[in-house]
Amino acid sequence: MLKDNTVFVGNKPVMNYVLAVVTQFNNGADEVAIKARGKAISRAVDTAEIALNRFLEHVDKGDIITSTEVIDTDSGRTNVSSIEILLRNRHD
Amino acid sequence: MLKDNTVFVGNKPVMNYVLAVVTQFNNGADEVAIKARGKAISRAVDTAEIALNRFLEHVDKGDIITSTEVIDTDSGRTNVSSIEILLRNRHD
Repeated sequence: MLKDNTVFVGNKPVMNYVLAVVTQFNNGADEVAIKARGKAISRAVDTAEIALNRFLEHVDKGDIITSTEVIDTDSGRTNVSSIEILLRNRHD
Repeated sequence: MLKDNTVFVGNKPVMNYVLAVVTQFNNGADEVAIKARGKAISRAVDTAEIALNRFLEHVDKGDIITSTEVIDTDSGRTNVSSIEILLRNRHD
């Protein structure tokens, strides 16, 4: 893999995102980043937990980073929290 | 502080939890843990981001830990994701 892979978690059912993460590792990714903003943050954590506990045997939890992003909306600027959860293949 | 402090985030407005975190630091806490489960995880991240960005000048983000907890409900056992966000006074 030349490039790290990212799965953006939104409002679809959580298993859609779990499948996306698992597929990326099966395709040879060394690291997958699960990203989400706002209310989807809970689903991003669910995605990581389900992928690790049920599907990925050789993958470890990496860093978890939270931040605040400024978004332009019709009603002005607003702040929204975001999360990035890194999963890493440990190659054993 | 002899003991670390914990703020459990639930379904109340986010500023309730921000106030709880800020109060614990103002009372001398070295470290505060923000914990949440399920859908409240997003609000826990909001709590940490708002507390750090708007109110706490001498506090750093520490580790963020996610896990899966098994909960007994009336309809049987179910898994729920949880998060723990640590904030630390850096004493400068």
